[in-house]
Amino acid sequence: MSEPAVKTDVLEERLASLDAALQSGRMRRLKPMLASLSPAEIALFLESIPRAKREVVWALVPDEDHGETLLHVNDEVRAELIDSLDRETLLAATEGMPIDDLADLVEDLPEQVTREMLRSMDVQNRERLKVVMSYAPDSAGGLMNNDTITVRPDVSLDVVSRYLKQRASLPDDTDALFVVSRYGRYLGMLPLAKLVTLDPERDVSEVMNTDIDALAVDMPAAQVAKRFQDLDLISAPVVDPEGGLVGRITIDDVVDVIRDEAEHSIMSLAGLDEEEDVFAPIGRSARRRAIWLGTNLATAFLASEVVGLFSDALSKIVALAVLMPIVASMGGIGGSQTLTLMIRGLSLGQIGFANARALLVKELAVALINGILWGVVVGGIAFVWFHQLGLAVIMAAALVINHLNAAVTGVAIPLAMKKMGIDPALAGSVVLTTFTDVIGFASFLGLGTLFLLH
Amino acid sequence: MSEPAVKTDVLEERLASLDAALQSGRMRRLKPMLASLSPAEIALFLESIPRAKREVVWALVPDEDHGETLLHVNDEVRAELIDSLDRETLLAATEGMPIDDLADLVEDLPEQVTREMLRSMDVQNRERLKVVMSYAPDSAGGLMNNDTITVRPDVSLDVVSRYLKQRASLPDDTDALFVVSRYGRYLGMLPLAKLVTLDPERDVSEVMNTDIDALAVDMPAAQVAKRFQDLDLISAPVVDPEGGLVGRITIDDVVDVIRDEAEHSIMSLAGLDEEEDVFAPIGRSARRRAIWLGTNLATAFLASEVVGLFSDALSKIVALAVLMPIVASMGGIGGSQTLTLMIRGLSLGQIGFANARALLVKELAVALINGILWGVVVGGIAFVWFHQLGLAVIMAAALVINHLNAAVTGVAIPLAMKKMGIDPALAGSVVLTTFTDVIGFASFLGLGTLFLLH
Repeated sequence: MSEPAVKTDVLEERLASLDAALQSGRMRRLKPMLASLSPAEIALFLESIPRAKREVVWALVPDEDHGETLLHVNDEVRAELIDSLDRETLLAATEGMPIDDLADLVEDLPEQVTREMLRSMDVQNRERLKVVMSYAPDSAGGLMNNDTITVRPDVSLDVVSRYLKQRASLPDDTDALFVVSRYGRYLGMLPLAKLVTLDPERDVSEVMNTDIDALAVDMPAAQVAKRFQDLDLISAPVVDPEGGLVGRITIDDVVDVIRDEAEHSIMSLAGLDEEEDVFAPIGRSARRRAIWLGTNLATAFLASEVVGLFSDALSKIVALAVLMPIVASMGGIGGSQTLTLMIRGLSLGQIGFANARALLVKELAVALINGILWGVVVGGIAFVWFHQLGLAVIMAAALVINHLNAAVTGVAIPLAMKKMGIDPALAGSVVLTTFTDVIGFASFLGLGTLFLLH
Repeated sequence: MSEPAVKTDVLEERLASLDAALQSGRMRRLKPMLASLSPAEIALFLESIPRAKREVVWALVPDEDHGETLLHVNDEVRAELIDSLDRETLLAATEGMPIDDLADLVEDLPEQVTREMLRSMDVQNRERLKVVMSYAPDSAGGLMNNDTITVRPDVSLDVVSRYLKQRASLPDDTDALFVVSRYGRYLGMLPLAKLVTLDPERDVSEVMNTDIDALAVDMPAAQVAKRFQDLDLISAPVVDPEGGLVGRITIDDVVDVIRDEAEHSIMSLAGLDEEEDVFAPIGRSARRRAIWLGTNLATAFLASEVVGLFSDALSKIVALAVLMPIVASMGGIGGSQTLTLMIRGLSLGQIGFANARALLVKELAVALINGILWGVVVGGIAFVWFHQLGLAVIMAAALVINHLNAAVTGVAIPLAMKKMGIDPALAGSVVLTTFTDVIGFASFLGLGTLFLLH
């Protein structure tokens, strides 16, 4: 520990110096630098460099990190790397990986490699892998590892201790043993902390923890993550519908789920996929984003059609054209605040149909206050700018209307989408903007036509 | 385990039935329901009901869950609850809480309660609490717990085992002991898994893990979270600048950091605070959001000023007013995709100044393709709509210009903000929209003035 304390952004600095070495072509410097990184850090570095350089860097990654690095890169980069690697390298990469990690990787491996890999495994591990692979990847069964150490309830702690000494090692991240009945039914957990502190003469059944409910093997990953967070779990048992122990989930796998979920929300709001490679090929990126742009274009044209209905007013009062983007924009901003609150609340379970009405009332009240406040401000500015009182009043009124519209649609859209099974994070903002643009333009130009055109 | 497998959204159902009981005033049903929830779930329920009902529900929360529930609710709801509770209740709530949790809570307690609480604690715990409280809450020191169990390197595993039997219990979530020198310097970790499997005659120094670097006590929480994720840690030692062991961080505290960070990004993008109460008082909510709306209004007026420069063209060619929102909107959508990619990449450490140029080139290429593609489509539609070839060509050209502008600003804004120490998630979208609106309107109306006005 004679090294200085770790500095902020030390990872960033390391990535920058790796990049410098790569740029200058000093491959001999790069190799030891890569060897000093964890597989997760190597994965991050691979993601951060353009595709053309990835194969060069991969060749310098230590062999023993191959498997884990593949696991840590995002789906798209993984597919690209797997494509470029030959059979032997892929087979070697999978050696010695834990079963749950292997199950994740196998889905992306070419079939022939999977077959050879299965053939080279011992019977027990092969069976374990097949069990984990038989569950959906985003369920408890897909997350779990089935290398659990089980003990019977009617033996003494001393017997357990002697059994463990015989085993001479435990699977990674084992903090507890699982207590099962003769028929394999899950009964409780025996934390190692109890094993090492309690009287060896006591029986397992006396001291085991029974307060943690087992997770059903088909429980969705998102719910597993919620349980771990709510109960501050480190590991938990997974059981089949009959209550038989089938595996355990450790928190490191759950952390990945939590992070992926959060990323999914952020990226979805912009119509992006969280697994997208930053340096995806230009054609592929362009194609994907085109879909999102096209969807938005359709809604933008709808707004334009509405504007087109008021051509007469627009051609006579040019101030309407100048000011109309403000009404639409303020509504969009207000609505996106409500929408974001709803999207987060729905994903946390904080908001549901039960309290939606109370929330709508609150959001309407907030919208009314801000609509009036900014309506007065905007109307005032409009008056100073164009010296027309009527225009100023209409502008203020349209702003109030669009704020109220934004509150209603901000609350209603995500709830409606949830009911229809559509991800509100993905489609909510497009639909919201359509409403705030259309109602914003229509109310402002409509009022203008009614009261300003003679 | 005779219960059926846990169903999807079981938490949501439970919250809904709690809410039903609350609505119908059946308080006697509510109490046992609350007792069956974890503190985190109670916290979520409290957050999900309007403020007026929270005090009623709080009175039904089991006493032993008070402390942890306070810890789990968001900052704003916590302040509200603490305000409404009397001294004795608060004091009772803090009893038996782990030091690291207590340190988080103490910041929000009234000073008098804190003083009384410190007085009622034993000397050792009081000192421990003071140490944890002396570090910034968002640093390793603030996250850590200092109830570590330490052992010397030169003793045998058997001696350690006998010592633990004497202690008779271990702090929560202990999966390893810490090995320190005679002077308290951190040397390594002794996982319980090794203690229970290896030959008791071996010395601690022979078998301890030395591959996990200790975390510096002033390391920012975000970086601590990154380390835990990258290295799949369950717990890690924290050391002072001299290498002396001062505490340990367990993953359950890190999970909270990871979730808070993710929430912060999502909420910031809409100008919201992740600690905001969904049912905050209307006045307070309105005031907070007013700031964000005001900021956006300033940028919207800037865009309007630009539109105003082209009044002449607008009054003569009304189609310009009808079509101009499309140019601005498409640029905004394209730009927000680039911006989101950048914000995520920066927070992951995937993007930095080192690879920004390569990324800019890629984003420009993607923008060019989509600009031309949608330029042709939009130009085509404009031609069919208004039968003016010049207008269609200008529209297409403006779309290409604004897409390229969106790519440049989408890449440049977050990098510039990072350099200035501003959170790109908070301010990025406002600045981006300003650019895409101003350049969008200016290019379209400018080209219109140049080529369509005679």
